[in-house]
Amino acid sequence: MPVLCRPAVWVPENILSMEKTLSLAEELHPKHPRLRLVKRMITNTGVTKRHLIQPVDVTLTHPGFEARNKVYVREAKRHIPAAVEQALASAGLGVRDIDAIVFVSCTGFAMPPLTSWLINELGFRSATRQIPIAQLGCAAGGTAINRAHDFCRAYPGAHVLIVACEFCSLCYQPDDSDVGSLLSNGLFGDAIAAAVVRGDDGGHGMRLVRNASHLVPDTEDWIAYEVKATGFHFRLDRRVPGTMSVLAPALHTLAGAHDWDASALDFYIIHAGGPRILDDLCHYLSVEPHAFRHSRTTLTEYGNIASAVVFDALRRQFDEGLPEGARGLLAGFGPGITAETSLGVWRAPTGPRSVVRQTGGAVPTAQH
Amino acid sequence: MPVLCRPAVWVPENILSMEKTLSLAEELHPKHPRLRLVKRMITNTGVTKRHLIQPVDVTLTHPGFEARNKVYVREAKRHIPAAVEQALASAGLGVRDIDAIVFVSCTGFAMPPLTSWLINELGFRSATRQIPIAQLGCAAGGTAINRAHDFCRAYPGAHVLIVACEFCSLCYQPDDSDVGSLLSNGLFGDAIAAAVVRGDDGGHGMRLVRNASHLVPDTEDWIAYEVKATGFHFRLDRRVPGTMSVLAPALHTLAGAHDWDASALDFYIIHAGGPRILDDLCHYLSVEPHAFRHSRTTLTEYGNIASAVVFDALRRQFDEGLPEGARGLLAGFGPGITAETSLGVWRAPTGPRSVVRQTGGAVPTAQH
Repeated sequence: MPVLCRPAVWVPENILSMEKTLSLAEELHPKHPRLRLVKRMITNTGVTKRHLIQPVDVTLTHPGFEARNKVYVREAKRHIPAAVEQALASAGLGVRDIDAIVFVSCTGFAMPPLTSWLINELGFRSATRQIPIAQLGCAAGGTAINRAHDFCRAYPGAHVLIVACEFCSLCYQPDDSDVGSLLSNGLFGDAIAAAVVRGDDGGHGMRLVRNASHLVPDTEDWIAYEVKATGFHFRLDRRVPGTMSVLAPALHTLAGAHDWDASALDFYIIHAGGPRILDDLCHYLSVEPHAFRHSRTTLTEYGNIASAVVFDALRRQFDEGLPEGARGLLAGFGPGITAETSLGVWRAPTGPRSVVRQTGGAVPTAQH
Repeated sequence: MPVLCRPAVWVPENILSMEKTLSLAEELHPKHPRLRLVKRMITNTGVTKRHLIQPVDVTLTHPGFEARNKVYVREAKRHIPAAVEQALASAGLGVRDIDAIVFVSCTGFAMPPLTSWLINELGFRSATRQIPIAQLGCAAGGTAINRAHDFCRAYPGAHVLIVACEFCSLCYQPDDSDVGSLLSNGLFGDAIAAAVVRGDDGGHGMRLVRNASHLVPDTEDWIAYEVKATGFHFRLDRRVPGTMSVLAPALHTLAGAHDWDASALDFYIIHAGGPRILDDLCHYLSVEPHAFRHSRTTLTEYGNIASAVVFDALRRQFDEGLPEGARGLLAGFGPGITAETSLGVWRAPTGPRSVVRQTGGAVPTAQH
C-alpha cells in the first residue's frame, strides 16, 4: 500500500507576532465598531506568530493583483525546489522516479501550472502527470494526499510528489474590514510543504489504507473567494467554526467502514483551521486535546497555513515518532464545505520495508 | 475497462460569424500595422462561426474582472445541469451512481469549485470526489478523461462525471492588440461539455485502454495567461502552431507502447487548436486529412472551444458510428506545452455490454 513519507516544510523568515497583529488591528482600524471583538477573537486563535513571504510593511500594501501574483510566482519558484528535494530525499527517491505531481495552492494562479515549471526546472520526466488543484482551499492538503493515494491504486508501484504552496498573506485585502476579514488577517500564515507518496510499499510513514470526501450540503458560501480586480477576497461565514458537528459524523463513518473507531486511534493529523475547530472535533470524537497536539502547535507557531497545515502537523508527528502499526486519521477541511480524509497505519523506520529504488516509474506509458 | 460514453455538448445561441469577426477587426483596429496579416490568419483558421455566452456587443465591452467572473458563474450554473443530465442519460446512469466529478475550465475561477455547487444542485452524493482543474487550458479535456480513467483504475466499477465549461469570450481583452491576441479573438468560442466514464464495463463508446501525459521541455511561456486586474490575458507564442513536430513522437510512443501504430488507427479525436495543428499532425502521423474530420468540423462550426473540443469531436464520432473494436487515439494539447493523450477501443451499442445500474457507487468509503 502507498506510504505518505515525511513531509518537508518551509516557512519564510519574516515573522509577524500576535502582539504586532493586535497593534496593527488597532492602528489600521482605530474606529472599527467591533475592534474589541476582533482583538478578542484574534487572541483566542492562539496564533503566537506567522511567517510571511514579504516583510510586514510590504504585506500591508496592495500593489495590485498583477504585481501580487508575480510575487506569488517568483517566491514559489525560489523556494519550492529545496522543499521538493528534501521530500524526495526523505522518501529515498529521485526526480526520475516520480510518476505524477499533485500541486495544490489557492493563493495565486498560473497557467500553465507550476507543475510544468517544476518538471522543467528539476528534471522530472516529460511523462510526469500534472494534477494542479487551485480551488479547494484548506481542504486541498487532504485532497492532494487522497488523489496521490488514488493514483498509486491506479498504478501500483507509482510514486507521487505532492507540493502545497500557500502564501495567504498575498490575499490580504486592506479594504475589507468585516469581522471575518479582520479575523482572517490575524489567522493565516505562509508556507510551502512537499511530500512523496511512495507506491511500492517502500519508505516509512503513514501507509494509506482508505480515503473519503464529504461535502456538507448547502454550505457553498460559508468559505468562499470573491474574485475581484484586486484579486481573491476571502469570505468567512460566522457559522464555519461550528462545522465540526456535521463533519465529525463523516469521520466516524470513514473509520467505521474500515472497522476502526474514530475515537480510539493512535494519531490524529487535523487541519488547524482555528482553535474552535480543534476544540469541537476533540469533543465530537471524544478524544483528549492532547490527541491534536501537532495541529495545535502548527496553528500556534505558523497560523493557519491552508493546505500545508496537515503536512506540517504530520512532520511534527514524524519528529515525535510512532510505533509500527499505529493507526491514525488525517483530515483536511475547506471550502465546499469539504472534508478530505484518510486513514493510515504507521510504518516505522525499523519496520519491514523495501527501499529498492526504481528508475523509469511504474506507469505503463513507455514515455519515460 | 472504463468506457467514455457519449458526450453532451451545449453552445450558446449568440453567433459570431467569420465575416463579422473580420469586419470587427477592421473596425476596432483600423490603423493596426499588421491588420492585413491578422485578417489573413483569421481567414485561414477556417472558423466560420463561434457561439458566445453573451451578445457580441456585450462581449466586446469589459465591465471588469469581478463582473465578468460573475457572468461566468451565473451562466455556468444556468447551463451545466442540462448537459450533465444528458451525459448521465447517455451513460444510463443517475446522479447517485457517480463517484467522482472532474471539472475542467480555464475561463473563470470559483472557490469553492463549481463541483460543490453541482453536487448540491443536482443531488450527487456527499461523498462524491471533487477534482477541479483550472490551469491546464485546452489540454484539460484530455486531462479530464485521463484522470477519470485513472480513478476507475483505482476503484474498479466506479463512475466518473466530466464537465468542461469554457467561456473563452469572457477572456476577451479589448486593450490587447498584439498579433497573437487578435488571432485569438478570431479563434476561440464558448461551449459546455459533459461526459461520463463508466467504470463497470457497461455503456458504449470509447473503452479507455491506456493514457499518457507529455510535457514539451522548456515551452512554458508559449501558451500562458498573464494574470492582471482585468483578468486572464491569453498569450500565444508564434511558435505554437509548429508544436506538432515535437508532440507527434509522443503519440507514436504511446501507441507503440500498446503495440499499436499511431498512423494506422480507425479514429482520431484531436484537439483542434487551429488549422495548422491539424494539418501538421496529419503530416507527422502520415494520415489523411479525412482522419481528423470531426475535429475540423468542431473548429469550423464552434471555433477552438478549449477543453471542450475533444468532447465535441467525439460526439460527432458517436453520430457517425464505428464498428465494434475500432481503435482510436484522443489527444488534448495545451499550455505547458502539455499533451494529454489516450488510446481506446470502440464498443458499439450492439456489442457485448452490461448496463446493470448500480446504486451507491463502487468506492469503498461507506459514505454513500
